[in-house]
Amino acid sequence: MQNTQDTWKVGSREFTSRLLVGTGKYASLDETREAITESGAEIVTVAIRRTNIGQNAGEASLLDYIPPSQFTYLPNSAGCYTAKDAVRTLRLGRELLDGHNLCKLEVLGDPTNLYPDMEETLIAAKELVADGFDVMVYCSDDPIYARKLEDVGCLAIMPLASLIGSGMGILNPWNINLILEKAQVPVIVDAGVGTASDAAIAMELGCAGVLMNTAIAKAKNPVQMARAMRLATQAGREAFLAGRMPKKFYTASPSSPVEGVISSSTK
Amino acid sequence: MQNTQDTWKVGSREFTSRLLVGTGKYASLDETREAITESGAEIVTVAIRRTNIGQNAGEASLLDYIPPSQFTYLPNSAGCYTAKDAVRTLRLGRELLDGHNLCKLEVLGDPTNLYPDMEETLIAAKELVADGFDVMVYCSDDPIYARKLEDVGCLAIMPLASLIGSGMGILNPWNINLILEKAQVPVIVDAGVGTASDAAIAMELGCAGVLMNTAIAKAKNPVQMARAMRLATQAGREAFLAGRMPKKFYTASPSSPVEGVISSSTK
Amino acid sequence: MQNTQDTWKVGSREFTSRLLVGTGKYASLDETREAITESGAEIVTVAIRRTNIGQNAGEASLLDYIPPSQFTYLPNSAGCYTAKDAVRTLRLGRELLDGHNLCKLEVLGDPTNLYPDMEETLIAAKELVADGFDVMVYCSDDPIYARKLEDVGCLAIMPLASLIGSGMGILNPWNINLILEKAQVPVIVDAGVGTASDAAIAMELGCAGVLMNTAIAKAKNPVQMARAMRLATQAGREAFLAGRMPKKFYTASPSSPVEGVISSSTK
Amino acid sequence: MQNTQDTWKVGSREFTSRLLVGTGKYASLDETREAITESGAEIVTVAIRRTNIGQNAGEASLLDYIPPSQFTYLPNSAGCYTAKDAVRTLRLGRELLDGHNLCKLEVLGDPTNLYPDMEETLIAAKELVADGFDVMVYCSDDPIYARKLEDVGCLAIMPLASLIGSGMGILNPWNINLILEKAQVPVIVDAGVGTASDAAIAMELGCAGVLMNTAIAKAKNPVQMARAMRLATQAGREAFLAGRMPKKFYTASPSSPVEGVISSSTK
Repeated sequence: MQNTQDTWKVGSREFTSRLLVGTGKYASLDETREAITESGAEIVTVAIRRTNIGQNAGEASLLDYIPPSQFTYLPNSAGCYTAKDAVRTLRLGRELLDGHNLCKLEVLGDPTNLYPDMEETLIAAKELVADGFDVMVYCSDDPIYARKLEDVGCLAIMPLASLIGSGMGILNPWNINLILEKAQVPVIVDAGVGTASDAAIAMELGCAGVLMNTAIAKAKNPVQMARAMRLATQAGREAFLAGRMPKKFYTASPSSPVEGVISSSTK
Repeated sequence: MQNTQDTWKVGSREFTSRLLVGTGKYASLDETREAITESGAEIVTVAIRRTNIGQNAGEASLLDYIPPSQFTYLPNSAGCYTAKDAVRTLRLGRELLDGHNLCKLEVLGDPTNLYPDMEETLIAAKELVADGFDVMVYCSDDPIYARKLEDVGCLAIMPLASLIGSGMGILNPWNINLILEKAQVPVIVDAGVGTASDAAIAMELGCAGVLMNTAIAKAKNPVQMARAMRLATQAGREAFLAGRMPKKFYTASPSSPVEGVISSSTK
Repeated sequence: MQNTQDTWKVGSREFTSRLLVGTGKYASLDETREAITESGAEIVTVAIRRTNIGQNAGEASLLDYIPPSQFTYLPNSAGCYTAKDAVRTLRLGRELLDGHNLCKLEVLGDPTNLYPDMEETLIAAKELVADGFDVMVYCSDDPIYARKLEDVGCLAIMPLASLIGSGMGILNPWNINLILEKAQVPVIVDAGVGTASDAAIAMELGCAGVLMNTAIAKAKNPVQMARAMRLATQAGREAFLAGRMPKKFYTASPSSPVEGVISSSTK
Repeated sequence: MQNTQDTWKVGSREFTSRLLVGTGKYASLDETREAITESGAEIVTVAIRRTNIGQNAGEASLLDYIPPSQFTYLPNSAGCYTAKDAVRTLRLGRELLDGHNLCKLEVLGDPTNLYPDMEETLIAAKELVADGFDVMVYCSDDPIYARKLEDVGCLAIMPLASLIGSGMGILNPWNINLILEKAQVPVIVDAGVGTASDAAIAMELGCAGVLMNTAIAKAKNPVQMARAMRLATQAGREAFLAGRMPKKFYTASPSSPVEGVISSSTK
């Protein structure tokens, strides 16, 4: 009774698992491997600036714990604050991974809150696409920028749920909806997921997947939380496909009349 | 890596599944069986006033589709508006099930919203306990009544998430928390769950289980939603056990200072 | 352009101000007077067990700062945990105020959270009404108990927004709506208001008034907050009367279909 | 006891009222005048593309109903989808108003939801500032773009609460907080306010003001709603200045630990 056909694609790469995970913040590389294995993730994202995937010879390498033969590596530009830095970093990642051209672009705007800089992100996206990268892009929940990023060739749009590392869940599901309405490529909620229900909500909205790191790595029991997230992502996906019951409001509140729907017509 | 020991008890009865399901509102008894099987539920609740479990000889009986040898029946008093009616109905249920003394007490207060009548519920609870029933009790999210119901001997407290059939999710998680803080018996969110994330949230709060009917029966694909709910209930339970990451708020909002915690001290 | 006709009644007493205030928790009786004057309140509630209105001869009396000739006193039974105690306390209040028969009944269920005990509250309400009191009653947001309290003769229903002293605002506006739909007497949100917008929201829902104490007394500047609350209560009332614009949702979210309205029909 | 000193500035222009209003969508110019007068607004925004302020000789002009001698006109570029169009439109407005150099820049990204195009907005902002305009700028709630707009010389940052005309209130107060934390110029919530409490909440967050049009013009009684909005804006401002009571949460929920504050430190 498994939905064996329920796959999704980033460009030509096809995946079954809809849970994408980060590789940082774990107590040890053993814990990293154990949690990621339990999560069922097929795509693992790696911060080139913080993680050894060969740059530092003689040190333990993630490659030995999370073999690229079994996982799809998604090098990211975490820690970069300009388009230029991000592009350089992702080129280094591609080189370290023998030409593997998939990447997660991320250009931050402020070290105190890690909010993305969308102007620089768009500049870098164009350059990376022109340079042959398959670009998945971390972004704000701005539906106009989501469309621009898709228009320049990004293969997945990855809006934040809330700030990186905040664990506050999806603060503005309405914006995620606006993005989902228009996008022709997969939309993946990235950043801000804090617990299992957050992942389920992302999937119930119709996202193709959800990416997280801190929520698993900083749970008291990361391996168990990895399993919770795997189940929650599946649960949310199944609920989306099953088609939920209609909500029946308690009452027709005179204080909250509802009329029409904005995006169904031009105003 | 399964948590094989993660069981819970209603009195002396022990269960593994934390998803309890209703048996009404399905398109057919075949669909009822298929969805309930997929849900993994061990406890199924049955509205004595609406469901044939032998009262109507010659008609199809739920007992033939959901065999009591495989499921724990939980007869309920749905549709009763007085303590007297509820007690009589549950006695009929016990009789029909050959003395099976487990029941879900439910006394409603208003046919237009199905909100429970807590005064009548407490009266009925006392009478049922005195009569030898093992009482699981549907109730409002009033923490004082939750304690009273436990004090008179109820074996599980089942507060609503929102109105029966509304699918609005947990409207007041703070009250559920107040109940959880004091209860020595299992607390099971009953009524109002609409989709998978609602079930996950109930479990993440620390509930022992979650009971639903409409959310599964009235999904577009009930069987698939049953599976979603099974996964979501497990996901929420695992997340609760794993211990979620701390939330880090964006900012110390000057408009929302937080100080102390009400229930940690007498005011 | 003032709405000079927009008055409301508790039994035969008529009021213009819809902001009711408590008299406790201020730094001094001078501050009490100044803040209450600024609030524009006509009704002031007094905890008989904590406030000197003549019981303690020789001590400063509230009566000298908030003259009963200018304000309608509303003695309350704060601090009482049984019907018996509450009735006795309110009788003492009536005696101290020369037979003034208006009172706010309040029976608490738990000293750690101050949640009301609705069972005891209803018992006390019956007794007070029979004894000639005009009863305004503090209660949970349970719509069935709200109706019972009205049925036994209470003249105003005063559901909590959230726990006393919590300042969390209206946690479950849906329940307040259910109460408002049925009530024939004024509904006044009592307890839990934290800031001006909370008061406005209560009024926008259609409440007749809002009662608060801590939100004013424990603001950094109580007198200024008293003015904010006066303005917010008026603002919310005017907005309710003006009839707000319809909400236009961003999108017809496939994850949140809405169908029907519970309380418009029996399900 | 009025706060006569509580003024705010856009560049060198000083204002007392913190409620800014639009001039469109009313049933008549008489209603426009009556509602705006009741609102107490000093700044009125005018869509150059839709409102006659002299372009159409022989037609009724807003200037005759809302005299520029009594109100500060804020011409806006509503309906423009490119930087070029917006700049041209605002230049026309300046010309029509005899060189009045204040403007509200607004560049939209999508006619179906009216979400702003931040890339084009920033381009236009630079050009307008260089051309001698005093620019107040409508924007998304992106804190990085808010800073960029301030950096290029905008005199007020005007993030949306929710989509134009939606009346959904402030969907993401956390982002508004992030903007407020860094901004050195006034932050004014613009778009999405639906009722009085929404305006109060904007002010309680610490905004310098709030701008709205539909919420007043499309209320059942626009003049009364204008008064409600005036009171609510004052109420929220006073509450902000008074310093609200701390929230005391019901319980230390084990499911929601809170730790640290993101923006207080670099992570």
